[in-house]
Amino acid sequence: MPVYQAPVNDTLFILNDVLGLERYGNLPGFADATPDMIEAIVGEAARVAEEALFPLNLSGDKQGCTRNADGTVSVPDGFKQAYDQYCQGGWIGLAVPEEFGGQGLPYTLHAAVGEYMSSANMSLMMYPGLTQGAIAAIIVHGSPEQKATYLPKMVAGTWSGTMNLTEPHCGTDLGLLRTKAVPQADGSYKISGQKIFISAGEHSMTDNIVHLVLARIEGAPEGTKGISLFIVPKFMVEEDGSLGARNTVACGAIEEKMGIHGNATCVMNYDEAKGFLIGAENKGLAAMFVMMNEARLGVGLQGLSIAETAYQNAVSYARERIQGRSLSGVKNPDGKADPIIVHPDIRRSLMTIRAFNEAGRAFLLWTALKSDIAHRSPDEAERQNADDLLGLATPILKGVLTDKGFDHAVMAQQVFGGHGYIEEHGMSQYVRDARITMIYEGANGIQALDLVGRKLALNGGRAVMAMFKEIGDFCEENRGDEAMVPYTKALKKGLNDLQAATMWFMQNAMAKPDNAGAGSTDYMHLFGLVTLGYMWAKMAKAAQEKLAAGDAREDYLKNKLITAKFFMEKVMPETVLRKARIEAGAESLMEFSAEAF
Amino acid sequence: MPVYQAPVNDTLFILNDVLGLERYGNLPGFADATPDMIEAIVGEAARVAEEALFPLNLSGDKQGCTRNADGTVSVPDGFKQAYDQYCQGGWIGLAVPEEFGGQGLPYTLHAAVGEYMSSANMSLMMYPGLTQGAIAAIIVHGSPEQKATYLPKMVAGTWSGTMNLTEPHCGTDLGLLRTKAVPQADGSYKISGQKIFISAGEHSMTDNIVHLVLARIEGAPEGTKGISLFIVPKFMVEEDGSLGARNTVACGAIEEKMGIHGNATCVMNYDEAKGFLIGAENKGLAAMFVMMNEARLGVGLQGLSIAETAYQNAVSYARERIQGRSLSGVKNPDGKADPIIVHPDIRRSLMTIRAFNEAGRAFLLWTALKSDIAHRSPDEAERQNADDLLGLATPILKGVLTDKGFDHAVMAQQVFGGHGYIEEHGMSQYVRDARITMIYEGANGIQALDLVGRKLALNGGRAVMAMFKEIGDFCEENRGDEAMVPYTKALKKGLNDLQAATMWFMQNAMAKPDNAGAGSTDYMHLFGLVTLGYMWAKMAKAAQEKLAAGDAREDYLKNKLITAKFFMEKVMPETVLRKARIEAGAESLMEFSAEAF
Repeated sequence: MPVYQAPVNDTLFILNDVLGLERYGNLPGFADATPDMIEAIVGEAARVAEEALFPLNLSGDKQGCTRNADGTVSVPDGFKQAYDQYCQGGWIGLAVPEEFGGQGLPYTLHAAVGEYMSSANMSLMMYPGLTQGAIAAIIVHGSPEQKATYLPKMVAGTWSGTMNLTEPHCGTDLGLLRTKAVPQADGSYKISGQKIFISAGEHSMTDNIVHLVLARIEGAPEGTKGISLFIVPKFMVEEDGSLGARNTVACGAIEEKMGIHGNATCVMNYDEAKGFLIGAENKGLAAMFVMMNEARLGVGLQGLSIAETAYQNAVSYARERIQGRSLSGVKNPDGKADPIIVHPDIRRSLMTIRAFNEAGRAFLLWTALKSDIAHRSPDEAERQNADDLLGLATPILKGVLTDKGFDHAVMAQQVFGGHGYIEEHGMSQYVRDARITMIYEGANGIQALDLVGRKLALNGGRAVMAMFKEIGDFCEENRGDEAMVPYTKALKKGLNDLQAATMWFMQNAMAKPDNAGAGSTDYMHLFGLVTLGYMWAKMAKAAQEKLAAGDAREDYLKNKLITAKFFMEKVMPETVLRKARIEAGAESLMEFSAEAF
Repeated sequence: MPVYQAPVNDTLFILNDVLGLERYGNLPGFADATPDMIEAIVGEAARVAEEALFPLNLSGDKQGCTRNADGTVSVPDGFKQAYDQYCQGGWIGLAVPEEFGGQGLPYTLHAAVGEYMSSANMSLMMYPGLTQGAIAAIIVHGSPEQKATYLPKMVAGTWSGTMNLTEPHCGTDLGLLRTKAVPQADGSYKISGQKIFISAGEHSMTDNIVHLVLARIEGAPEGTKGISLFIVPKFMVEEDGSLGARNTVACGAIEEKMGIHGNATCVMNYDEAKGFLIGAENKGLAAMFVMMNEARLGVGLQGLSIAETAYQNAVSYARERIQGRSLSGVKNPDGKADPIIVHPDIRRSLMTIRAFNEAGRAFLLWTALKSDIAHRSPDEAERQNADDLLGLATPILKGVLTDKGFDHAVMAQQVFGGHGYIEEHGMSQYVRDARITMIYEGANGIQALDLVGRKLALNGGRAVMAMFKEIGDFCEENRGDEAMVPYTKALKKGLNDLQAATMWFMQNAMAKPDNAGAGSTDYMHLFGLVTLGYMWAKMAKAAQEKLAAGDAREDYLKNKLITAKFFMEKVMPETVLRKARIEAGAESLMEFSAEAF
């Protein structure tokens, strides 16, 4: 049977000892997040994830969703009850401002518990996850009336939300979208068109579904400059807040997918559905990007989440499966063979996943904290710096944690041998589910382009210089610390590679933009390696300080140092490869004619 | 709709221009394989693959296999007809000696056409594929009577074969196996036990199924020294060759798997089934390894096969899908966007897959030719050298072509964006099917251990030295050739890394075997990179010679050189990373206690 235990101790170590959350007591909502409070919330989240969500993960994959003849959609057994329990626990509104019915706690805390929930049941968590993104867009761009109408119900989870961007002929290139909006006399719009790949598009778990839909108002300019964002509720909302007529939006089909079978991924047909403009006319893309940026962090989180569950199951199997003998002598003399966890090649897989997960968790929470600072700090310079780093980190977090999350789900599956290929152990599901995270909310190639093409040069490179400074300063500050040398030396080397690659882009991509595109994915991973290396150096520092102070978590902290060493020795050398590929440029990629492939 | 076109031109280039097959006319069967004959056979194989097998690939995945209430197993619609067509074409016996009903043609040719067949429909091809392995074992270890009884029917495909190794508690470690064989007065044995993951274990496509089963004769020693191999026919064979009673072997269940749904992967229950010893008592593992080594080449071939089909579909989609504009200026001014094949990051994926596939194809055929030489050459020294290189290449071919084949199926799927995640385009199937190739016939971690733990030191390192010499000689011979420098320089650098890593093992793994295990997977990939780099250098040389001679395939040959350059610039630098990881040793892997993970 699959296993999952939320890594509570690791979360607390990062929040308290690495990021020092208590230092941010001046930010709104942070004063309430005392160490005791955090421990209680994280512990309760672990319970919900382990007991309510995880037991439905494998069965949800097996059963999947069904579109019924009447156009309704059935979700897997038990999903509704577990969803209700999640909502009643107040988890959707954990970090939503109190004025909209939330608890106003740090977003960092929301990210911490979000990892557990997605580890336990990613498909189920997508229903409130999409709502979360819609809430964010309405908070930023909604009118006071729209906020009052929709937010409290969505925060409570009695209504859910969706994002409707993709059409059959356009995903990445939203400028091509055709869904049209015709203005009506009452100020509303009639929305017509087809949207595909709509997660949580139709289901009966909530009383209403609030679709946020990109469409083009009749007569609007072509391309991305003519796109507006609309609220299209499944059921119309009356003046008194009660539900009225069914809107003319319907699920035409459910996509047959490789994974996330528990999530209802729908083709949505809008047939003169009544919609309401949110934000300014023709500024829909900006409004959508509020959702998108939030969603990208959420998808990076999913990559980590699945890799963590896959890791735990691989460890459990490796401890129990008896096969072969240790190369360095029998370890289990009473048995006919040793548990496979004695084999170095099995440990290579386990340590690789573990080292990425722990650094990935730190990176996620570090980024979430930047988001909190960017949105809540009273100091403008601090806000700007945090916002710069958040914008820079978002595509890296999304791209790297999902690429690696998938690779590591595959690696964990491999530990099971043939037993990993059959569905019963759940390893196939982790791989199939993780696969989508590399694709949705902007395929990872798009994340890489966002990083190289937009984020790098933004404001004269302010963000990237801030990041280099932060890491460089860390190395400099710890120069005299002998015990830190194994970590800072490898980190500095990685940083040098990253800076050299950045310089190479400056010198070679202006005149020939294909050089930027050719190296973008390698650059994203290079940046990810250095950032994760930085997280490991910070964790090593915290572990050493705690050990020196006689902290009771001695084994835990020593294992942190071993894993940090592993990362520096076995993973960081990849920066050399990434840099070499970037510097090889676009030439050998662009010489082929399209027909020659 | 999915597309597939067999890469006939590329096969012919490798066979004729790179490997120079006509130089081996002195080997039995090679004289018949004239260039015209090869072209005809390869062309006919392409037709069968494209027209008979490929159209059933997606539908076979969707429908899957079913175990009926009476214990029979149904395969997907159309499989039986396509299988019959394949058998009637004489494809199973292409390289089987004429005395057993085959055509005695080169195994190299069998490998060449095998790629197409597996590209077109891997699940379907597993039925004759398993037969092939069983034929090989019976040829080497069977008695004259067994050969006469089984081989002609199996070569004709009217009977099929299986390999029964794995049991629920043992896969890699066959020493643990429990299936028992009790000697009977008539010289036969009663076989009892359960085998799992048995490909093509039960179906009605053939009149009989010849199970080759590993079991332990009562009283035999424990461990691998007490294992024997048995023939257990589904239907008993009478003296006159007709079929008699149904044997007591039955399919207990069909495994629910991530992929290869068209293949009937069975739990097989042996209940005092009548079996016949093949080969010597307690020497079953040696007999089984005849099948296993053949099967490992076949699985490496599958890795290449799926990557090729996935590549072709990604190319086709990238040419048609209109999304975004080229970074270097509009390429499709009449359309609203450019085809995505203009984007460097898409080309990075396509070129990466292509470069591996073309070198992988050359490596497969180079290895197959070594097999032909090892088995057919009249010269003992030549046979020994070829057998050394075949043994060395087998785990590398299996491990590297399947690890990369899977990665590249994923990469090709990514080109489709969200459309790659839904089942209708077939990209999900390629990924799910490719996944098994990393696992079966010895998981890739086992291939790496075979390479480092067995093949490296065998006969005082004779094989590895022969390989280093062959590659080193090639670099040396082309030293004066200015046009070859871009290829030989990168190859030599990679070879140096490989030799340094080999030396590191010699110095560090004797005293501490965990160092060998810790670096084994990296070493396998390092060896693979250098070997594929060597194939590229050989292909570049052949292309340059043909171009200089005014060959009509000018575009094709020039594209070879571009792809060779891509491989050297973008792929070969990975040797540095692999070497660094190997030299980091086992320490950071082995420090954790099993409980600490």
